[in-house]
Amino acid sequence: MKFYIGVDLGGTNVRTLLVDEKGQTYSEVKESTESENGPEYVVSKIKRMIRTLDYDACNGFENIHGIGVGVPGPVDTVHGTMIMASNLPGFAGYPIASELSEEFDKPVFMDNDANCAGLAEALLGAGKGYPTVYFITVSTGVGGAFIVDGKLISGGRGHAGEIGNMIIKPNGRKQGALNPGAVEAECSGTAITAKAQAILGKDVIKHAGNVFELASEGNAEAKKIADEAIDELSSMLANIAHTVDPHCFVLGGGVMKSRDYFWDTLNEQFNSKIHVGMRNHIPLLLKKLDDCGAIGAAMLPMSQLGE
Amino acid sequence: MKFYIGVDLGGTNVRTLLVDEKGQTYSEVKESTESENGPEYVVSKIKRMIRTLDYDACNGFENIHGIGVGVPGPVDTVHGTMIMASNLPGFAGYPIASELSEEFDKPVFMDNDANCAGLAEALLGAGKGYPTVYFITVSTGVGGAFIVDGKLISGGRGHAGEIGNMIIKPNGRKQGALNPGAVEAECSGTAITAKAQAILGKDVIKHAGNVFELASEGNAEAKKIADEAIDELSSMLANIAHTVDPHCFVLGGGVMKSRDYFWDTLNEQFNSKIHVGMRNHIPLLLKKLDDCGAIGAAMLPMSQLGE
Repeated sequence: MKFYIGVDLGGTNVRTLLVDEKGQTYSEVKESTESENGPEYVVSKIKRMIRTLDYDACNGFENIHGIGVGVPGPVDTVHGTMIMASNLPGFAGYPIASELSEEFDKPVFMDNDANCAGLAEALLGAGKGYPTVYFITVSTGVGGAFIVDGKLISGGRGHAGEIGNMIIKPNGRKQGALNPGAVEAECSGTAITAKAQAILGKDVIKHAGNVFELASEGNAEAKKIADEAIDELSSMLANIAHTVDPHCFVLGGGVMKSRDYFWDTLNEQFNSKIHVGMRNHIPLLLKKLDDCGAIGAAMLPMSQLGE
Repeated sequence: MKFYIGVDLGGTNVRTLLVDEKGQTYSEVKESTESENGPEYVVSKIKRMIRTLDYDACNGFENIHGIGVGVPGPVDTVHGTMIMASNLPGFAGYPIASELSEEFDKPVFMDNDANCAGLAEALLGAGKGYPTVYFITVSTGVGGAFIVDGKLISGGRGHAGEIGNMIIKPNGRKQGALNPGAVEAECSGTAITAKAQAILGKDVIKHAGNVFELASEGNAEAKKIADEAIDELSSMLANIAHTVDPHCFVLGGGVMKSRDYFWDTLNEQFNSKIHVGMRNHIPLLLKKLDDCGAIGAAMLPMSQLGE
């Protein structure tokens, strides 16, 4: 059995885990990030947390095969640095991976948290056994990850899977720095909520789940918003399918909690929008694992070392 | 030096080449396909053509490392069969690869011709040296290929790169079996030509090049059609960039002959539609190789055997 360390570095908390090659967790240390103290401080904290883990399960730290770090934002995977770090101010460009590899003399790999979650789903979750997996989370934002033969395709600038900015409705809704009519601006949980609040009010609509509830009860306005979002999500899936033809999609994120309302429609529309040769050959699967960021991070060295 | 055989099986002609690992060609045999005689006949012909090649350059057939076959349509790359074969009736499902591997006792790999062309560009052409390459041809149709670390991502059903069916304009122009508003229905050479013919007449517009010529001369109607097509192509590129973040795009096909009109605009619009972290980091490169289908086919075994 091979053992790895996973680090999930978030804006609020840091988690470090001792994980085996099957994803089982043996030891965990969790602390608040205190990112306001800057990257040097936080990386020192991570070093201390890694030293604090209990290595009995693998007979000591020396048997660790590698360390993986998941961070909230696009990563230069070659240099192990963040390219943008809106939730961790001051971390862009900071040599997190090389700091850790020098300290511990182990290979260190880094990728963004959505990619780590996708890797965990591909290796251990719903995508297990499929040669290629496109993982998608539809939640506050819309993000994804593409995994080929157990390895993440991170891209030249760490932006593979940034499908939230795919244009799904030219000249559509504008949200933040995204393209007008971007997926995230049209059919994320946030977008669905905002569209419905504008018509039905903030008292009625607290989150996207309310929109799907009202739609299933026959509310015409909610139904229009919900159905448009599902139509757009099916187009996004079809566009990705024509771009890389994955062996399966794995779908997660808060919006999937309302799947009873849209699952059949999403499947029908997706299949109607792809070439006949792919039709009914690319299953849409539900995410299986909970809270898989740190486990996915621990899978990075296994995946990258080809173990 | 390693040597391979490339077979470009088209609806009209078959070409077989003896090629080295650098893409240099030493011997070629070309014949008409005569596909109306069915797959058994054609595969027998290919066997004979392969035997007819001159193997002096590699000191005999026994030094061949593998055979690659490019075909016009999506391929089940695991079984080496065509999934659909609209230009080669009766060939879908026929065991082309296993017939050849049994005959010659060499590893045989098969993929569609657009993927083979993309592989050649990635390994030997404009994409050489880039870890990941997305190849796109904008011609009669719009097709593509995604190459990662020198290997084609063919997809679960051989449809990776079928970007002609990506929806770029919801409820847009309908063409054949494609989605309404699909890339190929909106901004392929065929679509640009058809849109302009409807307004300017078939006497004025023979092919897409005429539209770009008229546009550059200031014809308002031609300019509107040309500019809309470029806007849509830039959206397609941005959507692919957010899906896989390739290290470069390689662009080819007849429409690129008119690039003087649109190249700067295409680059500007593409970069304006991608996340700031990718901006100006994904070069759009022009296809370098001519007639690279058979050479790309010959690269399949090298790529798949990891040589």
